[in-house]
Amino acid sequence: MTYAFRPHVPELTMASGPCSIYPQVLSAMGTRMVHHRTDDFVALMRSVSDDLSMLFRTVGRVLPVEGESILGLEMAAYNLVEPGDVCINLASGYYGAGYAKVLRGYGGTVVDVAVPYDTSVSIEQVRAALDAHPEAKVLAFVHSETPSASENPMEEICRECHSRGVLTIVDSVSGVGGSDVRFDEWGVDVCVTGPQKCLGSTPGMSLVAVSDRAWERACRVIAETGRYDRSYLCLLPWRSWVECDYVPYTPPISSIYGLKAALDIVADEGLDNVIARHETAARATRAGIRAMGLDLWVDDESHMANSVTAVRVPDGIDDTMLRGLMDERYGLHISGGLGEEAGKLIRIGHMGYTASRQKVLTALSVLGSALMELGYPVDMTGGLQAASAA
Amino acid sequence: MTYAFRPHVPELTMASGPCSIYPQVLSAMGTRMVHHRTDDFVALMRSVSDDLSMLFRTVGRVLPVEGESILGLEMAAYNLVEPGDVCINLASGYYGAGYAKVLRGYGGTVVDVAVPYDTSVSIEQVRAALDAHPEAKVLAFVHSETPSASENPMEEICRECHSRGVLTIVDSVSGVGGSDVRFDEWGVDVCVTGPQKCLGSTPGMSLVAVSDRAWERACRVIAETGRYDRSYLCLLPWRSWVECDYVPYTPPISSIYGLKAALDIVADEGLDNVIARHETAARATRAGIRAMGLDLWVDDESHMANSVTAVRVPDGIDDTMLRGLMDERYGLHISGGLGEEAGKLIRIGHMGYTASRQKVLTALSVLGSALMELGYPVDMTGGLQAASAA
Amino acid sequence: MTYAFRPHVPELTMASGPCSIYPQVLSAMGTRMVHHRTDDFVALMRSVSDDLSMLFRTVGRVLPVEGESILGLEMAAYNLVEPGDVCINLASGYYGAGYAKVLRGYGGTVVDVAVPYDTSVSIEQVRAALDAHPEAKVLAFVHSETPSASENPMEEICRECHSRGVLTIVDSVSGVGGSDVRFDEWGVDVCVTGPQKCLGSTPGMSLVAVSDRAWERACRVIAETGRYDRSYLCLLPWRSWVECDYVPYTPPISSIYGLKAALDIVADEGLDNVIARHETAARATRAGIRAMGLDLWVDDESHMANSVTAVRVPDGIDDTMLRGLMDERYGLHISGGLGEEAGKLIRIGHMGYTASRQKVLTALSVLGSALMELGYPVDMTGGLQAASAA
Amino acid sequence: MTYAFRPHVPELTMASGPCSIYPQVLSAMGTRMVHHRTDDFVALMRSVSDDLSMLFRTVGRVLPVEGESILGLEMAAYNLVEPGDVCINLASGYYGAGYAKVLRGYGGTVVDVAVPYDTSVSIEQVRAALDAHPEAKVLAFVHSETPSASENPMEEICRECHSRGVLTIVDSVSGVGGSDVRFDEWGVDVCVTGPQKCLGSTPGMSLVAVSDRAWERACRVIAETGRYDRSYLCLLPWRSWVECDYVPYTPPISSIYGLKAALDIVADEGLDNVIARHETAARATRAGIRAMGLDLWVDDESHMANSVTAVRVPDGIDDTMLRGLMDERYGLHISGGLGEEAGKLIRIGHMGYTASRQKVLTALSVLGSALMELGYPVDMTGGLQAASAA
Repeated sequence: MTYAFRPHVPELTMASGPCSIYPQVLSAMGTRMVHHRTDDFVALMRSVSDDLSMLFRTVGRVLPVEGESILGLEMAAYNLVEPGDVCINLASGYYGAGYAKVLRGYGGTVVDVAVPYDTSVSIEQVRAALDAHPEAKVLAFVHSETPSASENPMEEICRECHSRGVLTIVDSVSGVGGSDVRFDEWGVDVCVTGPQKCLGSTPGMSLVAVSDRAWERACRVIAETGRYDRSYLCLLPWRSWVECDYVPYTPPISSIYGLKAALDIVADEGLDNVIARHETAARATRAGIRAMGLDLWVDDESHMANSVTAVRVPDGIDDTMLRGLMDERYGLHISGGLGEEAGKLIRIGHMGYTASRQKVLTALSVLGSALMELGYPVDMTGGLQAASAA
Repeated sequence: MTYAFRPHVPELTMASGPCSIYPQVLSAMGTRMVHHRTDDFVALMRSVSDDLSMLFRTVGRVLPVEGESILGLEMAAYNLVEPGDVCINLASGYYGAGYAKVLRGYGGTVVDVAVPYDTSVSIEQVRAALDAHPEAKVLAFVHSETPSASENPMEEICRECHSRGVLTIVDSVSGVGGSDVRFDEWGVDVCVTGPQKCLGSTPGMSLVAVSDRAWERACRVIAETGRYDRSYLCLLPWRSWVECDYVPYTPPISSIYGLKAALDIVADEGLDNVIARHETAARATRAGIRAMGLDLWVDDESHMANSVTAVRVPDGIDDTMLRGLMDERYGLHISGGLGEEAGKLIRIGHMGYTASRQKVLTALSVLGSALMELGYPVDMTGGLQAASAA
Repeated sequence: MTYAFRPHVPELTMASGPCSIYPQVLSAMGTRMVHHRTDDFVALMRSVSDDLSMLFRTVGRVLPVEGESILGLEMAAYNLVEPGDVCINLASGYYGAGYAKVLRGYGGTVVDVAVPYDTSVSIEQVRAALDAHPEAKVLAFVHSETPSASENPMEEICRECHSRGVLTIVDSVSGVGGSDVRFDEWGVDVCVTGPQKCLGSTPGMSLVAVSDRAWERACRVIAETGRYDRSYLCLLPWRSWVECDYVPYTPPISSIYGLKAALDIVADEGLDNVIARHETAARATRAGIRAMGLDLWVDDESHMANSVTAVRVPDGIDDTMLRGLMDERYGLHISGGLGEEAGKLIRIGHMGYTASRQKVLTALSVLGSALMELGYPVDMTGGLQAASAA
Repeated sequence: MTYAFRPHVPELTMASGPCSIYPQVLSAMGTRMVHHRTDDFVALMRSVSDDLSMLFRTVGRVLPVEGESILGLEMAAYNLVEPGDVCINLASGYYGAGYAKVLRGYGGTVVDVAVPYDTSVSIEQVRAALDAHPEAKVLAFVHSETPSASENPMEEICRECHSRGVLTIVDSVSGVGGSDVRFDEWGVDVCVTGPQKCLGSTPGMSLVAVSDRAWERACRVIAETGRYDRSYLCLLPWRSWVECDYVPYTPPISSIYGLKAALDIVADEGLDNVIARHETAARATRAGIRAMGLDLWVDDESHMANSVTAVRVPDGIDDTMLRGLMDERYGLHISGGLGEEAGKLIRIGHMGYTASRQKVLTALSVLGSALMELGYPVDMTGGLQAASAA
């Protein structure tokens, strides 16, 4: 008898992602290996592909890229942005602002549309930027900003850009599966999500939807810039997947198993129902937080994300102490703020497996109990009543 | 009661990789999520790091990059090769030959040292190339060529290059863990392996060892070429991992669990013993194949890999029919040949979990039985006796 | 790709047992088979045995009997009770009262000491019964009565019986591991527990501790009554286990794996700490329930169990509707009342994995939210504050 | 990071049972707990019940009893045998002979029909015994004797007994699922199997089929003998299961999950195909063993079991050394002989998951290699050719 490592894992993780994931996904991850060039694996990949198209609501093929979501986002720039291209970048949060670097990394001339991180960009601001920069080739933004728990109006932005012939690059890593995304209908061009947020699977992949316009641009950009056309960042090797089911690299087989289990949950429950469940969890969390007497970070309910909620740290409370108490005494791990928001907010993730009424009540009651222990009064009767009524 | 997908998986996979993996790894993959910015996960990563240094026999930190091994290999070129650099590339197999494209993709002037794919490059050939190209900056080669089951003399090549100040880029995806690799002692500069071969875990990561010289070169190359310094392909973001345990992206948490379980097996059994087990499996397979009356693909025993064995398809036998019979009647999946070798050879993987005497006997007896069914006589008594004596 | 069944499982079960169990136990259940007559399995059983002795605080060997706990309890009667033996039976609950049938089934003349099911038997009542029946051979009782969430004073009862030479049969199925049990020190004779309550493993075994006096009595009873001495109910075949590690039947190997994982948790955390965790969970639940404005079922805090709490169903509330709402809307399954208590009480299990502060807050907030939805006011601020302060 | 126990488990177990089991079963065992009194669990049990009826080919309900198979066999005697009843017991092996003790334990007057342990009982011998004892109430026998790998002609025996009004008690622990059993058509009365043999699940249950005649007899026997009618051994509490889906005890939930997965495999593959697979594995093993130059233990092919094959230990070979070598060098665990057969035979199990052509080749080649290493010549070419042609 020997011993196997067992990492310490909190009872429950409701952080900005990854959160605790579906037990069915955990179970699927333990499925034995099959070689990726067998008919059996190809059949599995086809099935995953159908599910992904359903998820993005596209007739096209989504690329199951192996690597963290940031890879998929960089691929967008590698393939769509030529030196000198004017790129409008909506900087409504930590990740959105950061994407300017990627665009510049590939030669883009970036026009930042910046708003404070506690709100989202309005369609009017987008129109103004497009009007001011009719030469813009690309507009990039983050659909759901997990660092500040805000959400940009994806449908309006994408429809506007599409009508003007501007390509959109959308980081919807924590959006797809939790908020409505209609890739074809809205005319999106590149949209990236990950399995580890609203899908409730494990991190390690970029799921990349690509429009026909984006494919065309990619061919031209790669040819004109002379960028390496077999690069891991290049879209072109993925034509074999789109055209004849051939994944150009050894796929992450166990992650595919987990992803398939997660997509099966979506298919069984129905995508609309899964999104509604995320909306309910978000609404319940917000109602509970407010009724407890706490403040939400984002300025307006219509700007808030479905997958995560940011709460202002109450006056007199140290967020590290608060989260430490929640962790150690109650086994619940949530996130703090990033960058400038560090210390100012805490974030509760309700995505995938944790997008449930039970988990929301758990988070609210643990947060409330910890605050009361630290001497900060909250109204839990009101909080739970509001959450359950939401 | 609903139903969960269950992919069809062969009883046993002894292909060119991935093969069937350790049950302990499968079990570890089902461990619940922990957020990657917790102390617990950081402690796990530190432990993985120590194990990886032990595996590569280096005091430096190995990078646990998220993405297929080809990503790690492209990173080597992105960071070490400037336009115009003379790069010697040893083309002793399908992957080795293919790496010339990557080097050229980053502006390298490639000098190919080509040998037939059924042998390996000799140290004399390497010396001759180095002599002929004293201006060479980089020499790249594949340590263990799974497509043809050959192995290049990594120690001699790396020592030679090191003494001449030429940086080495070594693809040891199917080498590390199955053959001896002494990163520091031999003066290797970049060495890439994957968890899905001799470690017996799942595909999805590049494990990249980087020498101090390579780090220095990377800083200079990125600065001089103006390549995007936050790219997923750039080494520089990984300084935070080397210096302060900070993985620059969300790591593939489940894959890390699987990798840790695989590394625990190495630590428990002892790296030398694990390598010896691979050598035994390879030797037994070769002895068995020969005594059965079949021919090995590679010209000389000293050029053969420890992780996979290539067997010439006997005259009059169709390799697709043979492998199909092994698959369907006996539940054993092995590989055929790639590219020009398609139809000429079959490949038996004995790596990680399948590097065992039992699995070798299973492979030999299934192969022998299938051949006999197809009317091709083999000497199984001799074959098994030779294999067990090896 | 085929599909495997997947039973619908609530997000969380905090019923009277089984409750949701430790993830480590679930993982261990998937360990591959080993034949039970191998040295490896015998070593595992020895280790389990040491852990069980630690758990019961006995130097003797605990029997890992295969079959539900009721089997272990019937074994006690089969081996210790002869026709005509006077047996005092403490009927302080559903299971306690029911045991009279077992004693009579083996010829016992039963003296019932009955108390209402919302309290426990006092040591004075026990002494009076023993005084009134000096000829009594056996006294049987339930330590922790899950149907009514009460607990009898095991230490005092066992010490008293021991001093008078009366053998004790103790049903501690939901006691051991959650409340202190000192088998040797208190002079207990037969004590039965199961893996599916405070140990947090799966149902299917009786763990039976047997004193030397009980072993002696068993030998005599079997000989004198002529009961079949190789029966599955007979203790005698288990001498081979006690004396030479030989389990007399094929053991339930997977259940043993699960049990070992559960016992490892106890060993890692420390038995005293595990019991303290159960006490805390029970105390917090009770404090929360009271402060919410609800009533506990059992008459006095000192009579309440550590593993489960019974709450009176508030006036005007239908318990089926209440529990249905908790199940369907909040994914939390708890128990109702049994027999005469049906409709009068609901029961919240906090045992093994669910004996945690987080799970208690979850149960309280789900219960409170459901009651508020049904129009019944509760004080959640007070409830959670009291629970967290407990 | 802490460490979890990991028992040492052989690469492959092909013993007399349990053997290595289906991966799907291992996976199912890790499913989370559901309380057994929920609608969800009741639905699962109904589904298991339908599958079990299909397995035994009966319209009646099979009892999923919790406890090793010997418990189910003792239940048969407890409920069907009154003191003084003449019971014919076919003693064709270790277990068959041993059952006389059980029958006597419940007062039966046993008539043993004994044959050597390397053959089976003929229908003529059964008829002669029935003719000689027209007063016999019960006839008991073992369908498949794993200790000697023989099989009695169940159909003929049961039909003969049924036509004479003699109740049959059949131990088919290693028969059902691997050999044809038609409970209703053949007029069997009690038939017991276990999940850990041909079903490829884990040990811990008795699956007991009971005819209407047996139910009637049980009612009368319990009433007339005054045996405890709520005993764990009594059939009567199981009426609630037969009549209204109510399992009388807490069922072994995880084992039920495993059993369901195993039954799903039977349903997917088809019971006839599963039996044919066992027949093929047995035939291939026997053909291989003979062609290798070794001797089978049982006198005639028609008397041999489908689930296990017994091989005479060759002259000059020590069976402990042989099996030790197979274990340590090749990771394959098989069984030796029991009782008088110890040292004389080795037994290879091919049941459930191990009833496959691949596993048979593995067993033959490991056995052959080990024998050759010990200096005993075998013809592996002939052996494997015969096995694959069988």
